[in-house]
Amino acid sequence: MKKIAVDMMGSDLGPEELKKGLLRFAEEYPDYSFILFGEKSKLDTLFASDDRFEIRNTSEVIPMEIDPMSFLRKKDSSMYQAITSVKDKKADGVISAGSTAGLVVGSTFLLKNIDGVSRAGLCSPFPTVDYSKPATILDIGASLINTKEDLLSFALMGRAYAKEVLKIEDPKVYLLSNGTEEGKGSKEGREAYQLFKEKNYLWFKGNCEAREALDGKHDVIITSGYAGNIFLKATEGMGKNMSSLIKKAFKKNIFTKIGYLFAKKGFDELSRTMDYKRFGGAIFLGVNGVVIKAHGNSDEYGFYSALKVCRNMIEADIVTKIKKQVQDE
Amino acid sequence: MKKIAVDMMGSDLGPEELKKGLLRFAEEYPDYSFILFGEKSKLDTLFASDDRFEIRNTSEVIPMEIDPMSFLRKKDSSMYQAITSVKDKKADGVISAGSTAGLVVGSTFLLKNIDGVSRAGLCSPFPTVDYSKPATILDIGASLINTKEDLLSFALMGRAYAKEVLKIEDPKVYLLSNGTEEGKGSKEGREAYQLFKEKNYLWFKGNCEAREALDGKHDVIITSGYAGNIFLKATEGMGKNMSSLIKKAFKKNIFTKIGYLFAKKGFDELSRTMDYKRFGGAIFLGVNGVVIKAHGNSDEYGFYSALKVCRNMIEADIVTKIKKQVQDE
Repeated sequence: MKKIAVDMMGSDLGPEELKKGLLRFAEEYPDYSFILFGEKSKLDTLFASDDRFEIRNTSEVIPMEIDPMSFLRKKDSSMYQAITSVKDKKADGVISAGSTAGLVVGSTFLLKNIDGVSRAGLCSPFPTVDYSKPATILDIGASLINTKEDLLSFALMGRAYAKEVLKIEDPKVYLLSNGTEEGKGSKEGREAYQLFKEKNYLWFKGNCEAREALDGKHDVIITSGYAGNIFLKATEGMGKNMSSLIKKAFKKNIFTKIGYLFAKKGFDELSRTMDYKRFGGAIFLGVNGVVIKAHGNSDEYGFYSALKVCRNMIEADIVTKIKKQVQDE
Repeated sequence: MKKIAVDMMGSDLGPEELKKGLLRFAEEYPDYSFILFGEKSKLDTLFASDDRFEIRNTSEVIPMEIDPMSFLRKKDSSMYQAITSVKDKKADGVISAGSTAGLVVGSTFLLKNIDGVSRAGLCSPFPTVDYSKPATILDIGASLINTKEDLLSFALMGRAYAKEVLKIEDPKVYLLSNGTEEGKGSKEGREAYQLFKEKNYLWFKGNCEAREALDGKHDVIITSGYAGNIFLKATEGMGKNMSSLIKKAFKKNIFTKIGYLFAKKGFDELSRTMDYKRFGGAIFLGVNGVVIKAHGNSDEYGFYSALKVCRNMIEADIVTKIKKQVQDE
């Protein structure tokens, strides 16, 4: 029986919504059980007495924005305790839809980086034009500016993830850049380019512009966290804008409305292809434990998907695989 | 009679394509004439003898990637000479679909920054969900990392542009950031935030996440060039991906094809809204002269649109307006 520690607090839609995702996941995977951290009185009314749901009362909630010192003082918060349960081997992974900053700080402090990992990073698969070929991108916001050594860690961890979880045989790695030519890129990106060239990594394929990143031909793309976060949110925003324009186009008049009835199947496929919720959230790669950041606004399907990501990481034994990848290079 | 200096070399589709855009523009605006820089033998066959098209032979072409020293040695290049004609007051503005790096270096060196401008920046209006409300964003790639003083220059120039060219009454300025709260953002972004607050600028409205930048509610968004370039290309790429997925959706089967016939009008409107070619390219704001960077792959419509941007900047007397904006603050 595998166990997931769930931070039930701090999400936008509240524990009621997370519960729905949890029950759906629990039904599908009977070999998983859960430790739920949060306000006991609230959780007790939500979850009927059930061996698979263990409830642990905590008195505090980590706010969206938090500095490291404040986090460490909030020892009786649902997030602190959920991470601690992984540290103490009481759970195989932890999931939270709460504060990203808190989860990054707390996991780094409590679980520590894997030996040889310069810095842990937030990683996410991104939908591309090819449904079957998501692109793995990191860091998307744990850091602001990274070093070339951090970027090397991101490359190795991204490869381990793409291999073990996405089942890509020999994932190719690119540096996110403002141009494809050698010599383009941020300061740390250019330094990483030289480092990878010196080390003669065959999996390193040079720079990738943001324009081509989601064309389905790039397996792993690494970047400093600030630029990665801009990339993440720019594509999310553009996807959202395009979706609302598509809706508007079909609602223009009676003819376009009829057009929708005919074209519906094609556009259902488009929605499936671009639906980022199927990826459930981000993975904090590089610490000694499986740590999943579900979207703050996770609904039932979103949280269910994030739990599946957590399960995938546990089943793939990703921490061991990253250790191996880091040692091998 | 106003005059535009045109660099006819270095574009992806060649001078033949630029010519089409030029002729379309020339027909629409009979009060404009042109100095064309490039290989004379080629241009002579393209342009019939016409008082409004003066041809100047140049022997070199600036390559896509060029360092400052190499640019300055290529004095007989079409780009160098075209910029020089603005410096020498022979032309009111210069346009090129060639090397961005060359145009930035050459314009900065030959035209010099406007007094009080810390750094010139590449600026572009971006299509938003609201057709009538483009967002002005700079810098999108002239620099990599900027200082808070640079960001202040960008804010003032962006405001001057949005006021004079887009006719927005009192443009609001935002810092592109990884979070909306104060304290979020890149190092220089956080410093600029404090600077703007100290100076008590009423037009400064805080941080803007990349996700919301193109919602039609943000007038001017400023950023260091590297992040701006990532934003530009991420949105371009996502727009392109969504367009290809829409085409695919309509081509799925016979029903979706019929759907397209009904929905066509709505989707024509969507295409118009998101068509970045209507903006023609980027404006290099902050030097003593009107400098327009047309898209490298400009077709007839794209180059025609870029020429219209050039004309708008000349008619708005943007250099004088920026001088005033910088002095007033």
